[in-house]
Amino acid sequence: MARTTSRRHGPGPGRSKRVVGSITQAAWRPPILPSRLIELLEPDQIEMIHDAALTILEEVGMKVLDTRARALFAGAGATVDEDNMRVRCDRSMIEELVALAPASFTLAARNPGRSLKVGGRHSIFASVGGPAFVCDIDKGRRAGTYAEMCEYLKLIQSLNVLHQEGGGPFEALDLPAATRHLDLYYAEITLLDKNWQPQGLGRERAIDALEMVAISFGITRQALVDMPVFTCIINTNSPLQLDVPMAEGLIAMAEHGQVNVITPFTLAGAMSPVTIAGALAQQHAEAMAGIALCQIVRPGVPVMYGGFTSNVDMKTGAPAFGTPEYTKAAQVSGQLARRIGVPFRSSNVTAANDVDAQAAYESAMALWGCLMGGAHLVLHAAGWLGGGLTASFEKLIVDAEMLQMMAAYFEPLEVSPETLALDAIRDVGPAGHFFGTPHTLARYENAFYAPLLSNWDNYDTWIERGGIGATRRANTVWKRLLAEYEKPPIDSSIDDALRDYMAKRKREGGVATN
Amino acid sequence: MARTTSRRHGPGPGRSKRVVGSITQAAWRPPILPSRLIELLEPDQIEMIHDAALTILEEVGMKVLDTRARALFAGAGATVDEDNMRVRCDRSMIEELVALAPASFTLAARNPGRSLKVGGRHSIFASVGGPAFVCDIDKGRRAGTYAEMCEYLKLIQSLNVLHQEGGGPFEALDLPAATRHLDLYYAEITLLDKNWQPQGLGRERAIDALEMVAISFGITRQALVDMPVFTCIINTNSPLQLDVPMAEGLIAMAEHGQVNVITPFTLAGAMSPVTIAGALAQQHAEAMAGIALCQIVRPGVPVMYGGFTSNVDMKTGAPAFGTPEYTKAAQVSGQLARRIGVPFRSSNVTAANDVDAQAAYESAMALWGCLMGGAHLVLHAAGWLGGGLTASFEKLIVDAEMLQMMAAYFEPLEVSPETLALDAIRDVGPAGHFFGTPHTLARYENAFYAPLLSNWDNYDTWIERGGIGATRRANTVWKRLLAEYEKPPIDSSIDDALRDYMAKRKREGGVATN
Repeated sequence: MARTTSRRHGPGPGRSKRVVGSITQAAWRPPILPSRLIELLEPDQIEMIHDAALTILEEVGMKVLDTRARALFAGAGATVDEDNMRVRCDRSMIEELVALAPASFTLAARNPGRSLKVGGRHSIFASVGGPAFVCDIDKGRRAGTYAEMCEYLKLIQSLNVLHQEGGGPFEALDLPAATRHLDLYYAEITLLDKNWQPQGLGRERAIDALEMVAISFGITRQALVDMPVFTCIINTNSPLQLDVPMAEGLIAMAEHGQVNVITPFTLAGAMSPVTIAGALAQQHAEAMAGIALCQIVRPGVPVMYGGFTSNVDMKTGAPAFGTPEYTKAAQVSGQLARRIGVPFRSSNVTAANDVDAQAAYESAMALWGCLMGGAHLVLHAAGWLGGGLTASFEKLIVDAEMLQMMAAYFEPLEVSPETLALDAIRDVGPAGHFFGTPHTLARYENAFYAPLLSNWDNYDTWIERGGIGATRRANTVWKRLLAEYEKPPIDSSIDDALRDYMAKRKREGGVATN
Repeated sequence: MARTTSRRHGPGPGRSKRVVGSITQAAWRPPILPSRLIELLEPDQIEMIHDAALTILEEVGMKVLDTRARALFAGAGATVDEDNMRVRCDRSMIEELVALAPASFTLAARNPGRSLKVGGRHSIFASVGGPAFVCDIDKGRRAGTYAEMCEYLKLIQSLNVLHQEGGGPFEALDLPAATRHLDLYYAEITLLDKNWQPQGLGRERAIDALEMVAISFGITRQALVDMPVFTCIINTNSPLQLDVPMAEGLIAMAEHGQVNVITPFTLAGAMSPVTIAGALAQQHAEAMAGIALCQIVRPGVPVMYGGFTSNVDMKTGAPAFGTPEYTKAAQVSGQLARRIGVPFRSSNVTAANDVDAQAAYESAMALWGCLMGGAHLVLHAAGWLGGGLTASFEKLIVDAEMLQMMAAYFEPLEVSPETLALDAIRDVGPAGHFFGTPHTLARYENAFYAPLLSNWDNYDTWIERGGIGATRRANTVWKRLLAEYEKPPIDSSIDDALRDYMAKRKREGGVATN
């Protein structure tokens, strides 16, 4: 259709469209979740799971390996068996502590325009965090380097649909383990102006993150206490165990008013019961134990409820992701989080090793699971491949498209005399067409979702243009985005202070590693 | 995990697993829709669309090209302008006629075990119908032949997740147009024992279908009147027109008590307003006009409400499918169908020309749209590619996997003392594992969804086994299914009678073609 109108800011989802360089993508706009989510279970069934979880914490308890964490639990009224490092909490203690957590919070970002509301109907999408490997279709899978990690971070900055960096897209294995986290934090701060995730593995890495983020805001670490900037992923060691590094990270973050995201990794049939209800009961117990510990450290500190229940392939023991069981577990996890009034974190996952139809349909099952389950933070929202062992450059783009589509789906459908268009229907009449009507001309540019990756050419045109499938197109998209990346400005004194802090910590030797 | 138990029929979704030949697939079990669907619009918004549709039928009316159809409308009280072939119906006439349609019905199949409930929470999945082309990754896209069409039909018979054949997967262009439908019907009847769809294009094709299906049941055509066997797709020519062949097909089917599926093709921005609300108002008007005509022909005859609203790419005019707009339109279409108490038909669609990530994510958007919208018939549920111009052998398998996953997702999550597994959690305790527990051993074989196509190998194993992506694996799956196809038995006298009918009709010259 010819451009016959200059109306660029009409109503509808297209309003959010923005061409940056040669790539059309949606503008920055964190999604607003539907008012009606999918409630897979009835309230009495949710109550049964909640009650089972409280029974687990009361009767079985958690094994807490960290001495300080056990002391904190004991001080709050838990029964602690020091010989077995076992912590048991009665149900009223857990319920009272969990009730202290706020239902929503705001995360600050270096760019104030990128601050994030989390909770209620406000959701955010974070990039993949934590894989060991990186891959693209040019060079295949390989160990990550710092240089490549920085390229990946630049793409995360460039993709508007990613609202938060997810804690390092993959390990920079060419850097020393003891100080690698410092280089990651520096890159997260300087290559992006978005909110970013720290590593919660041990007190030292947590304190380094807090120091460096404070420097980036030009404030002291102590002043962070009333300004949440971090969602820090804390994984319990399912079943029912909290190890020392995670407990240290949790305590450090909570002391500083930061948001711990307590995420049990309850793979049904391995680290939790083979039945999804049982796996969820255990997940709920572990999550509530972690949330309670945060509230003991600092009453009222924001926290998140992480759901990561999936199942293993019982033939091989390998984890499966984006399965029907995953979808159900994600939606019920959302219900459990709402039951205790804590914002919910879920993930976009697949077991596929190739950026193919399986990767897409498993991610779709995961996204519909977590978003219709009411996830306020979708971690690994873009880039996750191969069961989370790999960050893929092409999957990043495929996922960005899927996320944009979900966000567009969540935009309200307007029903009004203007959109019902009775006058246009009268004017066109039977057997006419709507291409050239004033009603169409006034709206066509912004009427519909504009894709980042999808190709809608008819077959002949598609073949003429090379017959290029989605994964190869994604390869072109990320390379263009990378070529057009613009580094967000940073005050040179802040940059110097960050470099000084890094240099000092490197001289000190960084963190202890085994 | 080693096979340490012989329990094969435990509870859970795995119960439906069935190994046929070398392929593991879900057993025949049409899905039960969730009790709570996604209601995207509020009741008052649905009422606004319904009211706008009634206004359209009252004030603008439908252009009805078929003389007999106009006479039927006139006889029922419509205002008919013969010069302009325009039919206008007041709202009470439409509402009274539409109210005669039943909310559910049962479709008979040649194999009584394959009969289908449609309506309420009962949904069925039908294979792709109508493309001009066929493709696979060995030979690319090409015009269809009868031999290849028969191969495709054999796969539809073999895939348990397909409950109905969708009206011919692609045209057999090596056969004469005047009699091609007879060969299609014969293949549909004899290569499958499932329910199948006829072609409603003109009275003659419809009558041939009715004659041949009656022969296949060993009854007369007149005896079909009280036994629905056909869902016949009737497309209005949007905007607001019903042509002669479709009207003839509709009338023939309704006279014989068969189910017309009235499906306006309201592409927003082309054949309907650029606003989705307007496109839906027009869709609703056209669908109600068709449903009303069926009820004039035979009061109380079962019908279906077809929703096919999507949007065009405003840059090229090409139709887009599986977009966020499509998803919303499908879910609202379900609400509109429920508003008038008529079972709902929707579709699994994509614009992708390759069986790639785009094909999968667009199909996922379509499937979540139509199924959470309460579709009782998902047409094109498997095999559709390239905007519906092509039936793909590999997409058939990808879709079958996605359909199996959706059906497994719909299976209820059991919450009971047994599934909450408190005893198992107590026994395993912190830091243990659940692999070998009695609770796991009693359930593991059938605990989880078993995939048809997905590969869950870890990366190294996946590479060792050739690093084969989903589309190439799908190629292997369909070839195995085809090699292992078993023709369902048919009484030789019925087979002879079908051949005699075909021969007679071919001698007569078949149907008129232009």
